[in-house]
Amino acid sequence: MATLLIGQSGGPTTVINASLIGIVKAGLKEASITKILGARFGLKGILDESFIEFTDESLNDIINTPSAYLGSVRFHLKDYPDDYDKYHKLLEVFKKYDVKYFAYIGGNDSMDTCLKIDEFFHEVHYNCKVFGIPKTIDNDLMVTNNAPGYGSAAKFIATTLEEIYFDTSVYEIGRVTIVEIMGRDAGWLTAAAKIPSLNGAPIDLIYLPELPFDIELFLKDVKRIYDEKKKVLIAVSEGLKGDNGEYLLKHREFNLHDDFGHLQLGGIALILAQVVKERLDLPVRGIELNLPQRCAMHLASKTDLLEAEACGKYALKYMLKGLTGKMVTIMPECKPKYRYTDLINVAGLVKPFPIHWIVSNNDISNEYLEYVLPLIKGEIKLKYQNGIPVFKKL
Amino acid sequence: MATLLIGQSGGPTTVINASLIGIVKAGLKEASITKILGARFGLKGILDESFIEFTDESLNDIINTPSAYLGSVRFHLKDYPDDYDKYHKLLEVFKKYDVKYFAYIGGNDSMDTCLKIDEFFHEVHYNCKVFGIPKTIDNDLMVTNNAPGYGSAAKFIATTLEEIYFDTSVYEIGRVTIVEIMGRDAGWLTAAAKIPSLNGAPIDLIYLPELPFDIELFLKDVKRIYDEKKKVLIAVSEGLKGDNGEYLLKHREFNLHDDFGHLQLGGIALILAQVVKERLDLPVRGIELNLPQRCAMHLASKTDLLEAEACGKYALKYMLKGLTGKMVTIMPECKPKYRYTDLINVAGLVKPFPIHWIVSNNDISNEYLEYVLPLIKGEIKLKYQNGIPVFKKL
Repeated sequence: MATLLIGQSGGPTTVINASLIGIVKAGLKEASITKILGARFGLKGILDESFIEFTDESLNDIINTPSAYLGSVRFHLKDYPDDYDKYHKLLEVFKKYDVKYFAYIGGNDSMDTCLKIDEFFHEVHYNCKVFGIPKTIDNDLMVTNNAPGYGSAAKFIATTLEEIYFDTSVYEIGRVTIVEIMGRDAGWLTAAAKIPSLNGAPIDLIYLPELPFDIELFLKDVKRIYDEKKKVLIAVSEGLKGDNGEYLLKHREFNLHDDFGHLQLGGIALILAQVVKERLDLPVRGIELNLPQRCAMHLASKTDLLEAEACGKYALKYMLKGLTGKMVTIMPECKPKYRYTDLINVAGLVKPFPIHWIVSNNDISNEYLEYVLPLIKGEIKLKYQNGIPVFKKL
Repeated sequence: MATLLIGQSGGPTTVINASLIGIVKAGLKEASITKILGARFGLKGILDESFIEFTDESLNDIINTPSAYLGSVRFHLKDYPDDYDKYHKLLEVFKKYDVKYFAYIGGNDSMDTCLKIDEFFHEVHYNCKVFGIPKTIDNDLMVTNNAPGYGSAAKFIATTLEEIYFDTSVYEIGRVTIVEIMGRDAGWLTAAAKIPSLNGAPIDLIYLPELPFDIELFLKDVKRIYDEKKKVLIAVSEGLKGDNGEYLLKHREFNLHDDFGHLQLGGIALILAQVVKERLDLPVRGIELNLPQRCAMHLASKTDLLEAEACGKYALKYMLKGLTGKMVTIMPECKPKYRYTDLINVAGLVKPFPIHWIVSNNDISNEYLEYVLPLIKGEIKLKYQNGIPVFKKL
């Protein structure tokens, strides 16, 4: 008798359900696992004992559905003494349902939660294997070559920017178009703006948050390119910071904080557009790519989807070998490709975009292209009904 | 000796090049046409004698490329006496290049230009057939059942909203999400927000510009749904007007006017988000779908693409029959399906969304779904290279 429990956590991606299905399918094949439960809304579902059980029949279509099938949560588990009741409620639920394997699919905050649970179980001598399955469009997880979710988001961003390039090239006298891209403090997603150049659709200026943003230099570059081409296409990261290390976007209207104290970024394209208008008096437009970056299933990368699924499968494989307190990693140069690292190496940490891949402050090197192209390779085939894709709702 | 001259005008769409290729291919097959020219940047290219010549070889990949291949223009031709020099320059160029057939692909403003040119040639006894080929994502052209460009934009909007529905459903306690859709004074594009309901992803509230927008009623509906579901997904048209008939969006920062005196709309999602925040104090997010609505080639409707191509083909067919001063129309109930109307019936006019298809002020009827489903049917297959589509640049 052993239950495998799975939760999904943090912001949605297009392939988080592929990881879910990867581990569920592996679990269904494993005789020693007698029950597979999915927690509704992450950790919250565990505390509330809100579960669904997985059987063969329930898997159809889920893998091609964006956003967390089980629902997600941004739940900050404090250190053991400060959240004593929650830890013991967790233990009680794990014991009640005989959970011996626990996999949590998420980003660096979720890995921190995972680590705390593993350490707690160790302390109270509860025998349960705990494993993290990487997931984030931001690609800011340490150790792993890449995080599932990133390849699909990068493919969406590159394709959309390529299409916007064609749109904004249509008039002889065009505009300054500033496109804002997600990724918080890491420039991985914004760097994907380099990809369209390979297909003849170059983005003129690309700004990542890893280097301080110099507004005067920016205006000079915008003016120079506009004078020459009568149009400028720019990609900026939502997390740009000035010389003083502060976010450019400190006065945004809906400048709320999420439960982890992160700034909810967004809106920098409009702010920069206003500066361009005021200082250079050029026609300008700000575009925020927004939520589709993390949910555009119709443009998911096949490679990313397969890697996400494999990460789910390997999490169980390693837990069955007796390992705990680890996160699956993707190591393309190694055999096997799917390995693991201690959760402490990823929990709460951010992997920045390599500064030496940033060229002249506003361009991205070919080394990045070599890195990213394998990750965005391949298209998936969705089922369509009524002219739009068919997804699976819980 | 007879030259066929083609121009593309107004805002880009994903299928405007299909119309171009439709008429070019038809022209290449027609012995009486000795030369086929494309004007760079619409009417401006004609005045500047900036042309490219079409041969068989040049057609590859263009049909699957978004945005006007020849370049476009927003050029307002005044009445003959007020723009005397331009009219006579046009005539001179047409004579010089022996242009006997002129097709202009565009929306209601471009059809107005087309009409003026046809009337002028008639007045000065210059024998040239002039035909409009319909094109607009807004679907606001009179007479024709639908305008090429609309089906693809509707398919993009419906798919993206379906994906956003899944994204915003992920947390148990969610937000108010307000998505802003193009279409200016016509609600056709925003109505496409009804489509995802067919695949289990209903948008809670849909507001079109054809009815006055009542902010108090809006807030009441938002609050009611949030109290019940803890999340609300809303689609709004950029062109919403209040009781007084004025645009809600009159104080936008970049409230520029285009060359036809249209307001450059955009930004209403953020304004409404601010009202929801201030009045209801709910977590809220504003999303502008922006340019991808008119350039997302990767989600083009196959039906739309084929119809656009056919419109190009029929424009030449009718001109060869001696007709002039008309625009091709799509009439699905008729045989042949592709007909024509006098340009005067479409020039500068706007076809609103039928008010009797709007239900309870914030929903869309099934009659609309019956209308739109055939238009968004079918997917196209693009060539991919480096993980993103391959397009053709002039």
